[in-house]
Amino acid sequence: MNGDLMPSIDDLDTPAILIDAARAEANIRKAQAHADAHGLKLRPHIKTHKLPYWAKKQVAAGAVGITCQKIGEAEVMADAGLTDIFLPYNILGRAKLERLKALHGRVTLSVTADSHETLEGLAATFTDAGHPLQVLVECDTGMGRCGVQSAEDAVTLAKVIDQAKGLSFGGLMTYPAAGRAAEADAWLKAARDALAAAGLACERISSGGTPDMWRSGEDSVVTEYRPGTYIYLDRYQVAKGVGTLDDCALTVLATVVSHPTKTRAILDSGSKALSSDTLGLPEFGELLGVPGARVTGLSEEHGTVTLTDGAKLRIGERVRVVPDHCCVVTNLFDQVHLIDGDTVLETLPVAARGKMG
Amino acid sequence: MNGDLMPSIDDLDTPAILIDAARAEANIRKAQAHADAHGLKLRPHIKTHKLPYWAKKQVAAGAVGITCQKIGEAEVMADAGLTDIFLPYNILGRAKLERLKALHGRVTLSVTADSHETLEGLAATFTDAGHPLQVLVECDTGMGRCGVQSAEDAVTLAKVIDQAKGLSFGGLMTYPAAGRAAEADAWLKAARDALAAAGLACERISSGGTPDMWRSGEDSVVTEYRPGTYIYLDRYQVAKGVGTLDDCALTVLATVVSHPTKTRAILDSGSKALSSDTLGLPEFGELLGVPGARVTGLSEEHGTVTLTDGAKLRIGERVRVVPDHCCVVTNLFDQVHLIDGDTVLETLPVAARGKMG
Repeated sequence: MNGDLMPSIDDLDTPAILIDAARAEANIRKAQAHADAHGLKLRPHIKTHKLPYWAKKQVAAGAVGITCQKIGEAEVMADAGLTDIFLPYNILGRAKLERLKALHGRVTLSVTADSHETLEGLAATFTDAGHPLQVLVECDTGMGRCGVQSAEDAVTLAKVIDQAKGLSFGGLMTYPAAGRAAEADAWLKAARDALAAAGLACERISSGGTPDMWRSGEDSVVTEYRPGTYIYLDRYQVAKGVGTLDDCALTVLATVVSHPTKTRAILDSGSKALSSDTLGLPEFGELLGVPGARVTGLSEEHGTVTLTDGAKLRIGERVRVVPDHCCVVTNLFDQVHLIDGDTVLETLPVAARGKMG
Repeated sequence: MNGDLMPSIDDLDTPAILIDAARAEANIRKAQAHADAHGLKLRPHIKTHKLPYWAKKQVAAGAVGITCQKIGEAEVMADAGLTDIFLPYNILGRAKLERLKALHGRVTLSVTADSHETLEGLAATFTDAGHPLQVLVECDTGMGRCGVQSAEDAVTLAKVIDQAKGLSFGGLMTYPAAGRAAEADAWLKAARDALAAAGLACERISSGGTPDMWRSGEDSVVTEYRPGTYIYLDRYQVAKGVGTLDDCALTVLATVVSHPTKTRAILDSGSKALSSDTLGLPEFGELLGVPGARVTGLSEEHGTVTLTDGAKLRIGERVRVVPDHCCVVTNLFDQVHLIDGDTVLETLPVAARGKMG
């Protein structure tokens, strides 16, 4: 501590992201304790915070490493000293493969593949890499996104990986459909058994998604979990029963800029600050401490708040909005403010924001 | 021209924003010609491109100035040499008001207000500004966002502006509800007449929104139009009848990273590249030159393409996606590439991206 007073959130211009540091730390500890109690390795997805600051805290709390979705994110994290990075993505094309190889030279790296095409690129790139790149097979266990469609196809790709000089078979990876963890588990168990029958050990079975992590039991075949949102939480997670509004660490500080009617107020935070991604919820956010005030409409620079049940706001008032999906909000801001109550502890650049490749 | 070969879009990593320069220039010319033919002043909204490059072209083509929505955007444009900027927003709070005053010292600036609270802040800040700040009254003509609710309220605020030492009454401003330009016009005409009855001239009546610009006729009371999207266009504008897909200047270059089933392919462009903002359209984008290929689902880093009518894609293939709403896509990327066919003419940083305050 120096003699300077730390700034208050009243000193911040709006809109701004506030992160309640103690809540985020509590959320990290709680997930790590759950993972430890269930014999699960935790490998948090940094997409939610995009900050080396939290990635390091997650590893310090017991995570085996981190998960990134873009090479650009992984490069930022490697630069910051993170040493074990999982990129559960099909990396294709010469430019990305060369960057992947450079990254492999300086951190413990693993990736996924769900096609022969992806494996051909990886195999050609890593044949002279010195030590093999660990590749997991991505499995579509019900989500309907990427992934092989059958255990048989998983075995086929695992064999290709196993036989490629520069690659080593790392296991299976899935992003399960929300609420269908049991179905995913059955799928993965069948694939694991098929791999064993083919003589391939499957040491690592990696799954993801914050809501279902808390339902993962000891009888699951999953060995590693990649939750992202758990560190901040948001309205979607609250709707799914993962904590309460009081556990949400991320809020958007906004100003009421207009109040045209008794029941309508306008915030300076539109889709450029809160994002249009509702994950299916009927509103775009709610105001902390103002029951009955919900963000019911967004344009790019305006958030429309509908006031019900006698909720009141005044022009110029500053409010805190809990968004529906915190990860996409993080990507819209160049910086976040860590807070303790009304005190701003630290302002951090969102170092891995906007990484496209 | 130097002797170097210009790069091709094949050299770009994905996802990336491509801007067909000739199409954008044609869109600028077409809107300016329409405005000129109807005696309308054009004041393009820079939210769509966020680039001094296009703002200067728009002014060179005949625009009277530009429109920005954030002080940070206006500062970038002023730094780049733009001299006449309209900020149709309620500016509140000491920090923003001081920045606004500094901006007023170096460009021809105008703003809006829809409340006494906003006017109090402006009046207090600009009382010693040397020359008055032009303030227009924002009117809610049917959109249900900001704006006074009646002509009577518009007159009340106009009088306050007129009597404030540092402010001058600049006229009326609205963002009309889509497709309801006639209703907006009737509202504004009544307000203009009420102002005249109160002895207040209303020299400037400013309206916005790309689709309805093309329906604005010579008998409108509107003197100035603030279209944004017209420069790039997108699927929403095409759905509204503003041009065809061949007029869309902005596309997102993406790579097919997975092809799990015959009818499902996955792009490396999710909501972080295309945004979740569909403006009500049933899909998130469509693929140029691949009829029957539409983006039917997005997660942050994955775009799910559903293939119908025999449409085919292959893993590793690069495609160009026309998004639903181009303005929000611009805000997600740090740079854009101006192209002519497959040639990259220039790569520009999105200088006014992510400006929150």
